[in-house]
Amino acid sequence: MKSIDYQEILGEIYQNIRHQAFAGEVASYIPELAKVNPQKLGIYLCDLQGGHYAVGDQQEAFSIQSIVKVLLLVFAITKVDYAEETIWTRVNVEPSGTPFNSLVQLEYEEGIPRNPFINAGALVVADVICQCCQDAKTEFLHFVQSLCNQPSIDYSLNVAQSEKETGFRNRALINLMKSFGNIQNAVDEVLDFYFHACSLMMTCQELAQTFLFLANQGSAYPHQKAIVSKRQSKRINALMQTCGFYDEAGEFTFRVGLPGKSGVGGGIVAVHPGQYSVAVWSPPLNQKGNSAKGMRALELLTTKTGLSIF
Amino acid sequence: MKSIDYQEILGEIYQNIRHQAFAGEVASYIPELAKVNPQKLGIYLCDLQGGHYAVGDQQEAFSIQSIVKVLLLVFAITKVDYAEETIWTRVNVEPSGTPFNSLVQLEYEEGIPRNPFINAGALVVADVICQCCQDAKTEFLHFVQSLCNQPSIDYSLNVAQSEKETGFRNRALINLMKSFGNIQNAVDEVLDFYFHACSLMMTCQELAQTFLFLANQGSAYPHQKAIVSKRQSKRINALMQTCGFYDEAGEFTFRVGLPGKSGVGGGIVAVHPGQYSVAVWSPPLNQKGNSAKGMRALELLTTKTGLSIF
Amino acid sequence: MKSIDYQEILGEIYQNIRHQAFAGEVASYIPELAKVNPQKLGIYLCDLQGGHYAVGDQQEAFSIQSIVKVLLLVFAITKVDYAEETIWTRVNVEPSGTPFNSLVQLEYEEGIPRNPFINAGALVVADVICQCCQDAKTEFLHFVQSLCNQPSIDYSLNVAQSEKETGFRNRALINLMKSFGNIQNAVDEVLDFYFHACSLMMTCQELAQTFLFLANQGSAYPHQKAIVSKRQSKRINALMQTCGFYDEAGEFTFRVGLPGKSGVGGGIVAVHPGQYSVAVWSPPLNQKGNSAKGMRALELLTTKTGLSIF
Amino acid sequence: MKSIDYQEILGEIYQNIRHQAFAGEVASYIPELAKVNPQKLGIYLCDLQGGHYAVGDQQEAFSIQSIVKVLLLVFAITKVDYAEETIWTRVNVEPSGTPFNSLVQLEYEEGIPRNPFINAGALVVADVICQCCQDAKTEFLHFVQSLCNQPSIDYSLNVAQSEKETGFRNRALINLMKSFGNIQNAVDEVLDFYFHACSLMMTCQELAQTFLFLANQGSAYPHQKAIVSKRQSKRINALMQTCGFYDEAGEFTFRVGLPGKSGVGGGIVAVHPGQYSVAVWSPPLNQKGNSAKGMRALELLTTKTGLSIF
Repeated sequence: MKSIDYQEILGEIYQNIRHQAFAGEVASYIPELAKVNPQKLGIYLCDLQGGHYAVGDQQEAFSIQSIVKVLLLVFAITKVDYAEETIWTRVNVEPSGTPFNSLVQLEYEEGIPRNPFINAGALVVADVICQCCQDAKTEFLHFVQSLCNQPSIDYSLNVAQSEKETGFRNRALINLMKSFGNIQNAVDEVLDFYFHACSLMMTCQELAQTFLFLANQGSAYPHQKAIVSKRQSKRINALMQTCGFYDEAGEFTFRVGLPGKSGVGGGIVAVHPGQYSVAVWSPPLNQKGNSAKGMRALELLTTKTGLSIF
Repeated sequence: MKSIDYQEILGEIYQNIRHQAFAGEVASYIPELAKVNPQKLGIYLCDLQGGHYAVGDQQEAFSIQSIVKVLLLVFAITKVDYAEETIWTRVNVEPSGTPFNSLVQLEYEEGIPRNPFINAGALVVADVICQCCQDAKTEFLHFVQSLCNQPSIDYSLNVAQSEKETGFRNRALINLMKSFGNIQNAVDEVLDFYFHACSLMMTCQELAQTFLFLANQGSAYPHQKAIVSKRQSKRINALMQTCGFYDEAGEFTFRVGLPGKSGVGGGIVAVHPGQYSVAVWSPPLNQKGNSAKGMRALELLTTKTGLSIF
Repeated sequence: MKSIDYQEILGEIYQNIRHQAFAGEVASYIPELAKVNPQKLGIYLCDLQGGHYAVGDQQEAFSIQSIVKVLLLVFAITKVDYAEETIWTRVNVEPSGTPFNSLVQLEYEEGIPRNPFINAGALVVADVICQCCQDAKTEFLHFVQSLCNQPSIDYSLNVAQSEKETGFRNRALINLMKSFGNIQNAVDEVLDFYFHACSLMMTCQELAQTFLFLANQGSAYPHQKAIVSKRQSKRINALMQTCGFYDEAGEFTFRVGLPGKSGVGGGIVAVHPGQYSVAVWSPPLNQKGNSAKGMRALELLTTKTGLSIF
Repeated sequence: MKSIDYQEILGEIYQNIRHQAFAGEVASYIPELAKVNPQKLGIYLCDLQGGHYAVGDQQEAFSIQSIVKVLLLVFAITKVDYAEETIWTRVNVEPSGTPFNSLVQLEYEEGIPRNPFINAGALVVADVICQCCQDAKTEFLHFVQSLCNQPSIDYSLNVAQSEKETGFRNRALINLMKSFGNIQNAVDEVLDFYFHACSLMMTCQELAQTFLFLANQGSAYPHQKAIVSKRQSKRINALMQTCGFYDEAGEFTFRVGLPGKSGVGGGIVAVHPGQYSVAVWSPPLNQKGNSAKGMRALELLTTKTGLSIF
């Protein structure tokens, strides 16, 4: 494997896309997201040789939103032995082919969400966690803090509160699943945990470091403590590959060729198994709800490095 | 990268699954497929170190059916310069979330198929080829023969004729697309070419050798002549990853973790970029229309080698 | 018009269907409905010549459930001048072609229910009423009591409470509509009113008398006071004709040929404009959720009288 | 029943809507329909007292298109004893809730069309007729000629030919149904008959006279020869009520309150059982594919006469 100058490549990407016309709009359905500066742009990459590479606003925390769905799944899997098997009886592993918050397939398929990275699936995972924990919010926060060794990471109570006041579609989803018997806890308890989880504030650096274990066959780097098993790591990456970008998962795979996960806060995390993890942040979203510049940055990354998983 | 004894692993897999109870049924919608011996089982793997490994009925030709959709796409891309851009305006690159021959999304999305590996998408690719060729059937056959250096490869005229007599759903698909203006040639001409292409008879060995260039960044092995560009190779693999198994694409990615493509003849081809290509054949299909033992064999392969793209 | 001996015909129908094998199951999703005696059978018909005809358990009150959707619409129309126009901007007037509580069309059609007689549409009508009333529950109850001159009619608090505890799908529907901006009041307030309305306990006699004004061009019989206008009466009957039986509306129209409305309590009300109104009660439901014997009784009624609107 | 001056009312309607701005576009998918003068407007009403009333272009023949679906159903029912039962095992009687040529429900419901008045359903009826007739085109033409006693009525071979060349969506529908086993004859034979049937040229007068038996409990007027039974007449009217206007059936019932059937040639036929039949012709169509002025004319008719079936 030839040596790659990631810092130089990140610099080129940053220059290339920084002043491009905005291709989309910042998420505006809650005030806290709407007031973010659309010019923000940060990238952070850390590899399995110990390299750390950064450009732009990579030290600024933003609302990670749906990126947390991967961490919820990881936490549920690690929380109890039987969790993974439980989960796959209640959530499927197929791409949805529909927007992230659609109710259509959920009704046709009798309350079993297509995958854990659409809202319905993440709500089921949150329900599994609520069953296993005394205090889901606190335990999950500690888990994320420990993954990147940053005890300062916290929820945004403003964001969580706004979601609570406006999240009628998530209420629709969870009530529909409850009508099919696929939610065990009280609806309000699960939603409270879920809205908090989505409100997590993290920087590109923290996200890249948090996800590095998925580039390392499930083990923390560099000390190699297993977070999840090798097989679980493969599965989580596989799910990000096919389901990480809602109904744009195929496009991302086609253009970028890495497993990844986006959030409406404008963040994207991607993993190159055996190589690196990378986080990008640029708030304006394209029509599918994914960061427009973030997708472009990662496409340039795999093109310029000449490396993808394919 | 540690050295792997593929021959030993294939032998273990063969012993493991050979006598398992049949998990499915041989495709029966046309007589030529129905009369295949369900006990057939073959695997062939060739890697980029020049290794060739084989077990079972890997020298017996079978009807490759939908596996040909990858070869149709490759042929269309190579046929004319502008073909790739033309194709992506007429076919999308997203997983469908529905069975391979569904008309539902095609109607909602106004005649633009979700991807080139469902029937509707492959029919559009066939239409593109018919536009570029004087004699599509002959030219495409020569292309496939040249890919694996086997001039004896041929269509099964019986299979093609049976498809013609019973392929009412494919007729429905192509007429629906023609009503939306997404088919340029006469319906019967495109169907004739498509039914012939699906009837190609190939062995596991021929299939594995044919697909090896997709493990080699688009270039033939070992002489390194480019079949498609590096970027195109990445894209084709990405499409197999997200769309190669109809509404079981997520499951295959989750369990196997390699890009691949299946056919109702019981064949599956998979590619590990940078490593190898592999073809499996076992006729009984699971409920989603994919070879039950074929999927199991490939899951064992990535488990036993400890290697997948994730 | 020849004179018809309704009492003799009702007697024949009663004898004919009383001991037929049960074609369905009593609704069981809440305990209060599940414990009803499935053998109950009553019919009450009153005509515009002052005739009253009755057989069986027509004096026993049952939970009218979805039949109340017609009364909610009537009450909303009469409550305020502008109500009707408001309603038709928020609810459509087309048959749904789907089960009564489906979310699919509601999502495709952006929160506008297909008609006021599916759950989603009735929830919007309930929301309109909540906007117009200080105390919707009390005012609506008085309205129904006055329609049939029976001040003893009341809600079943047990039924309403059970619905509240188990009505997750209705919660899903109303939250989905609220996410589209088509619900003005707090979700819990509208649901509380709606669940009470559905819990109304009425006898066949009370129901037939209540609906007689729709056979009389909108005016109470015999004193001819207008409840709704002639045009509104036509419209309400038209809606019952096309939308009164969920995805069995066509079947009911085809077999019976009268506008009507069913409820999962086993009741059906039908109206022959210019002639009579009739109420039937038999708890076992067919697969579409309509009273199996009730539908049969009304088919026999129009066959034996030789009269339908067609 | 008070006496109504239909001639005066038709005259008022004609004056009222003649010069209204065009609310829609003439059907343009085949040249023969596109070149019709959009200003054409004719109405013809005949009642069961022997009255005939006419205004405007009611003597000019136009392409009746989907109106023929009712006549196909009537012919199939009369053709052979067992036809009606055969039909209802192969076609449902529910409103579709979708456009006239949609494939979606047809796929979900495995090749059984929702009703005989959407294209798929009419194609099944045409297939039933092809099974019963030696020469379906000739026999059906004679049947229609005899219904209105006009031996000059004929197909438009130009229209039929144009449909044949462009009817890809109908080809999609019939092939999809054939894939489900719901078409018995060769696809091309059924389509040829169907396209001819849709091309029938008739005047408002001929249409009103043809449909008068459906206002007369199934018997020809005045000589009372039964065309269909009383029960069959009720059922056909019921089907027109719930399914006669595609996804605008509810709106037509709501506004007009009569069973009817429209065609993209701009014609509408409606029936008031016990009273009259009426045909309107005005080519510009609204967004749902129904004659905009035709619907308005019939709404005015039931408003001005104060009579509808509701």
